[in-house]
Amino acid sequence: MCGGCNGGAEANGSAANGTNGRVQHPVQNRSASSPYQSVGDYLSNVGNFKIIESTLREGEQFANAFFDTEIKVKIAKALDSFGVDFIELTSPVASEQSFKDCKTICGLGLKAKILTHVRCNMEDAKAAVATGVDGVDLVIGTSSFLREFSHGKSMAYIQKTAIEVIEYLKGEGVQVRFSSEDSFRSDLVDLLSLYKAVDAAGVQRVGIADTVGGATPRMVYDLVRTLRGVVHCDIETHFHDDTGCAVANAHAALEAGATHIDTSVLGIGERNGITPLGAFMARMVVTSPDYVKSKYNLKELKALETLVADAVQINIPFNNPVTGFCAFTHKAGIHAKAILNNPSTYEIINPEDFGLNRYVSISSRITGWNAVKSRVDQLGLKMSDEQVKEVTAKIKQLADIRPLAIDDTDSILRSFHAEQVEGSGTY
Amino acid sequence: MCGGCNGGAEANGSAANGTNGRVQHPVQNRSASSPYQSVGDYLSNVGNFKIIESTLREGEQFANAFFDTEIKVKIAKALDSFGVDFIELTSPVASEQSFKDCKTICGLGLKAKILTHVRCNMEDAKAAVATGVDGVDLVIGTSSFLREFSHGKSMAYIQKTAIEVIEYLKGEGVQVRFSSEDSFRSDLVDLLSLYKAVDAAGVQRVGIADTVGGATPRMVYDLVRTLRGVVHCDIETHFHDDTGCAVANAHAALEAGATHIDTSVLGIGERNGITPLGAFMARMVVTSPDYVKSKYNLKELKALETLVADAVQINIPFNNPVTGFCAFTHKAGIHAKAILNNPSTYEIINPEDFGLNRYVSISSRITGWNAVKSRVDQLGLKMSDEQVKEVTAKIKQLADIRPLAIDDTDSILRSFHAEQVEGSGTY
Repeated sequence: MCGGCNGGAEANGSAANGTNGRVQHPVQNRSASSPYQSVGDYLSNVGNFKIIESTLREGEQFANAFFDTEIKVKIAKALDSFGVDFIELTSPVASEQSFKDCKTICGLGLKAKILTHVRCNMEDAKAAVATGVDGVDLVIGTSSFLREFSHGKSMAYIQKTAIEVIEYLKGEGVQVRFSSEDSFRSDLVDLLSLYKAVDAAGVQRVGIADTVGGATPRMVYDLVRTLRGVVHCDIETHFHDDTGCAVANAHAALEAGATHIDTSVLGIGERNGITPLGAFMARMVVTSPDYVKSKYNLKELKALETLVADAVQINIPFNNPVTGFCAFTHKAGIHAKAILNNPSTYEIINPEDFGLNRYVSISSRITGWNAVKSRVDQLGLKMSDEQVKEVTAKIKQLADIRPLAIDDTDSILRSFHAEQVEGSGTY
Repeated sequence: MCGGCNGGAEANGSAANGTNGRVQHPVQNRSASSPYQSVGDYLSNVGNFKIIESTLREGEQFANAFFDTEIKVKIAKALDSFGVDFIELTSPVASEQSFKDCKTICGLGLKAKILTHVRCNMEDAKAAVATGVDGVDLVIGTSSFLREFSHGKSMAYIQKTAIEVIEYLKGEGVQVRFSSEDSFRSDLVDLLSLYKAVDAAGVQRVGIADTVGGATPRMVYDLVRTLRGVVHCDIETHFHDDTGCAVANAHAALEAGATHIDTSVLGIGERNGITPLGAFMARMVVTSPDYVKSKYNLKELKALETLVADAVQINIPFNNPVTGFCAFTHKAGIHAKAILNNPSTYEIINPEDFGLNRYVSISSRITGWNAVKSRVDQLGLKMSDEQVKEVTAKIKQLADIRPLAIDDTDSILRSFHAEQVEGSGTY
């Protein structure tokens, strides 16, 4: 029934999830006191998923994106080095250069498999095959919105064309994914019928896409869970971030049995984009640390994001998970005290896993004396706890009036220390 | 049993959710074909929630934040005008100025209720009352991490102190919220015992906090759902965004029966912050458009975000929901064509609800002739479909070589049009 399908064992989560097919739950392992610290079940692939990296396809749809061949090659190599499983490229029929670039990237000899993303018709499929890609991602809109206002085709026509194109691609020996667009606003019965037919025709993956970014994690869980019971092949998912749920939706999809997640670097894509690779890594390194740390070169994340941010002339968002400038900055006194005792108190991610450092800020009115004491020790100054409390009060007083930089605070500490030494007569 | 509790009717979602206690599901209303377009049940408060806006508390813990009195007042007024239900302020014991600023903001006569956030001890509670706030948000760490590495107190001690402080605050006639810190890594039985006790003591709200940002929507749903069955009072939730799930977690909490969500403008707070007000509005205006549009002044969002971004010297992230520069920019030809026919095809949020506009980009290799035709019409040029297809090919060819600005593209269209007119002899 399911010719080229490689997802049977993998997709039900029973083969490669570690101990007896159960997903490892690190948070639970650390402190098994709460039944809600992690949720896993036999469908879950949170510890066994693949990334389809779409910076060079979805990312090219970002408002600022213009990628010439040189930057495309650089990004493809950086993604490959990071360890993504698939690299998806813009359709070769988009333009002449798009076709050439597909061929160029296919010729790089990367470990990652190369895909291109085309409309579900024979002409596009033939152009895709001519570029030498490993796989073709077919897409067609199935929602009533898209059928009415975009291509105007019936479900029967869609299915007939899909089967023809799939048969052709199978004959050419390339992997095939078939995806609907706007899956969450498509008729469920139509959708399942179509997926069942293309699964039987032998696709490697079917795709669910939240094209407008309106889905919630529970909607995702329920749809993927149902689809998992209908098809035997792998399930790919694609989430736009219009309502801020793209990372959580990817996680929910894996919990429900999806096998592949679409990402782009910093999430760049149409409108405000899709599941960002970095934020997704932040999520998954917490859920499945062993799998993520052994498979992806997390220490390359910051350089990869910087490469893409520069190419499309944007700043890395201040609040980006992991690589935002303040992602590991601790400021409130109560936090700083605990962090200095044990970083796990206020950090769910270890910055060192990403080659980064934490920073404890002491230059504000909400600092505390434990944090100040740590800085005093770093500076090699000797003070009693009483003295540290006294200088902390001074810092809070000054920070009440104007912003302080770390240099300002260090000066206050040094000058206070000098006064104390002088005053004590040990000078 | 539940003295000052105001959450009984509201919290179980049966009173104010519109029709017969069922939450309105707009997405489902638009196209009722899929059972997964929306998930609702009798516990859900997605159509009936309150916002506790914490830019002036959590936001002050953001690395870059230094708020003087003037900017605090400006932000408080802007939040009030936007329509948030509560404004939470930094503890008055943090510094002398913090105390004074609490008093100043309490004296502004805003519609929003004013809260301050203090450690669960009598000294802090007394200082809070002295500022004139409407309510006091008590917090204490209950996870084994925090009990070991932060305050070192036993659960019995925590409960005894909490009851004393709550009794005192009730006597002073202020609202009380009691929250744990790091709730998802706390012992569930300890947590439920404590919440049951403070509920019986008459708090208005108990709080759940994902202090480290490690929770997922299913973990949130399960914990809030359980708590909903244990306490009668309202349930407030607070989600950090370290793993990119803070918006989805807030939505899941409401689905499970939480009543109040903590936000800050642009999410500013410790590390990379908490649920951002704007992204949360994007999520909720899709889930519950009538409730959100009637209650919050969405058109003020951009000005509010700009005010706070300027105050803490950050840029609004390029990918911010709603207000990111490209949140309503459409680029791929297939998208642009459909958007021009009906914006709902590729937009789940109407930009006009936020006083914003959509933009269809045509200056790229992935544009299509329908999008170009629309621009041709906007410019008042007359071309046949064949001519539009011809000039589209030209644009794609040029955009293959170098980035094009909209001015460039307009010049191409005008010059092509002039040539055609000249060539046709109608000149």
